[in-house]
Amino acid sequence: MKKKRGQQSIIFGNPPIITSTANIVGPMEGEGLLRQYFDFIMADNLNGLESWERCESYMMEWAIKAAIKKENSSMDKIDCILAGDLLNQLMSTHFAMKNLNRPFLGLYGACSTMVESLLLGAMLIDGSFANKVGAAASSHHDAAERQYRFPSELGVQRPPSSQWTVTGSGAAVLSSLGIGPHITGATIGKIVDYGIKDPNAMGSAMAPAASDTLWQHLQDTERTPNYYDMIYTGDLGSVGKELVIQLMQEKGVDLSNNYEDCGCMIYHEKQDTHAGASGCASSAVVFCGYIYNMLMTGKLKKILLLGTGSLHSTTSYQQKESIPCIAHAVAVEM
Amino acid sequence: MKKKRGQQSIIFGNPPIITSTANIVGPMEGEGLLRQYFDFIMADNLNGLESWERCESYMMEWAIKAAIKKENSSMDKIDCILAGDLLNQLMSTHFAMKNLNRPFLGLYGACSTMVESLLLGAMLIDGSFANKVGAAASSHHDAAERQYRFPSELGVQRPPSSQWTVTGSGAAVLSSLGIGPHITGATIGKIVDYGIKDPNAMGSAMAPAASDTLWQHLQDTERTPNYYDMIYTGDLGSVGKELVIQLMQEKGVDLSNNYEDCGCMIYHEKQDTHAGASGCASSAVVFCGYIYNMLMTGKLKKILLLGTGSLHSTTSYQQKESIPCIAHAVAVEM
Repeated sequence: MKKKRGQQSIIFGNPPIITSTANIVGPMEGEGLLRQYFDFIMADNLNGLESWERCESYMMEWAIKAAIKKENSSMDKIDCILAGDLLNQLMSTHFAMKNLNRPFLGLYGACSTMVESLLLGAMLIDGSFANKVGAAASSHHDAAERQYRFPSELGVQRPPSSQWTVTGSGAAVLSSLGIGPHITGATIGKIVDYGIKDPNAMGSAMAPAASDTLWQHLQDTERTPNYYDMIYTGDLGSVGKELVIQLMQEKGVDLSNNYEDCGCMIYHEKQDTHAGASGCASSAVVFCGYIYNMLMTGKLKKILLLGTGSLHSTTSYQQKESIPCIAHAVAVEM
Repeated sequence: MKKKRGQQSIIFGNPPIITSTANIVGPMEGEGLLRQYFDFIMADNLNGLESWERCESYMMEWAIKAAIKKENSSMDKIDCILAGDLLNQLMSTHFAMKNLNRPFLGLYGACSTMVESLLLGAMLIDGSFANKVGAAASSHHDAAERQYRFPSELGVQRPPSSQWTVTGSGAAVLSSLGIGPHITGATIGKIVDYGIKDPNAMGSAMAPAASDTLWQHLQDTERTPNYYDMIYTGDLGSVGKELVIQLMQEKGVDLSNNYEDCGCMIYHEKQDTHAGASGCASSAVVFCGYIYNMLMTGKLKKILLLGTGSLHSTTSYQQKESIPCIAHAVAVEM
């Protein structure tokens, strides 16, 4: 029997197992700090395809297939795939799913999508609705830039608070049986909006949502941050990360020992991405590579992953609306 | 214990109850065939707000609040809301959710979103992850037209196969306890793409996905169409509806007695919408009004609702890609 614990959290009765993960990135990510934790590094941002959008579809398809291959399973064993991306109407996800031919549920949580897919996938398995689920997310720097901001070719100067959308995709296979870390709990986030309107300050916009969900998770589960070896946020970058530390400190919670943001882990400082990485792929490629590896090798035993999403659109920006944000969390334990 | 039945279907062990529904529409829908089954008909497509997008947000917020009020519950009893819309990055949903302040999971299934939210909501309740869930979807004719096609003010001539995006929102409350029809089963769809590239022929594009999911549902549950009093598709319109009948006939399944499309039920012929209604709100306002009423009054006892989604974007259209489509199904029984 599953337990609903507290206001927004769930502790799984039969914690689903992450039996496999895979990731794929672009060349810039491949030159970064986590080089050794990527399964495939593309030589360029098109990988021989006609458009950035097609390349993003390819990455998601590749990541899901690779994750299934790694656990010696096959596509027909996957009961359902939960996935999404940043593009209008989830374009890259839908064209990837077309090729995979499995039951599919589309999600949109902006850069929180990887955690949303892990969270719902875990419910599908713990609830006995599925035995094996695929969870995936992707983003592509150039496809996202031309949709949200300016075409990359324009070379528009970026402010210091701006982040760099990760080109990549991460995928995980969740199973009812098998070997790997377990998704032991989850916290579903609420929309938090501090009135920030600048899409070049997404870290600051998302930080209050991240700290809201983290605070609620700790309340619901009656835990302190020390319960976890590490707490990760998805893509707040350096500006948002500092803000989360500060917001939690104001609530009397000390994050100085065991908190990091995936957006600060991908690129070298000399790669000049300003405030760090962003995009659905930020948390997806870090979780489905480095973090999963740390869990499997016993270097980390308990982690909390907070996916953070900035839910604006070009229309909401043009209409001078503020940026609603959200964060969802999953607890993963070996 | 929940049972997974067949390839893509689920029969719920403790079928969640739809304890309440509500809907809201624009003036044109209010002049149509289902006038008496709408809770609120707006006087115009802005309803005193600054933009069509804000009006769409308002409609979703109104529908969810009205559904909760009808069952004498309160917002804080809702454990989670699952919702989505057609706009880029689910703009109208996110601004509605900001005001409702509940745990929220964003979905994108184009016009299949209402059924996707019912299906996942039912899993959350049957899996004991929640006691009460809100499920909602919305669309707005003018907001959708200017995003997908041309601004309404341009007055561009529409081809006969084109459909009219419904201005409206429907919301349902699913509960573990209470009175109302039960969601007894669900079928998760796969992407089906017959190579159609014309976004003015969405009915033809979606019909193969609808018949694929319907066929799989009947196979998985070992049922014939006669098990249901009525089978409804979401927004195929007159062209897509005929194609579904034909595609099922080719498989030896007769739909002539008990099949209708929500997209053919909303507007009078003289309203000149060409092939009928479309949009997330097509199935949402018909299910959360007319169909729910028929179930509650015993005029229908068993229905199957197929949400149908055309998953194209303006980018995929401009890049000359075909239209991937999907259909999800829920069985609702009194």
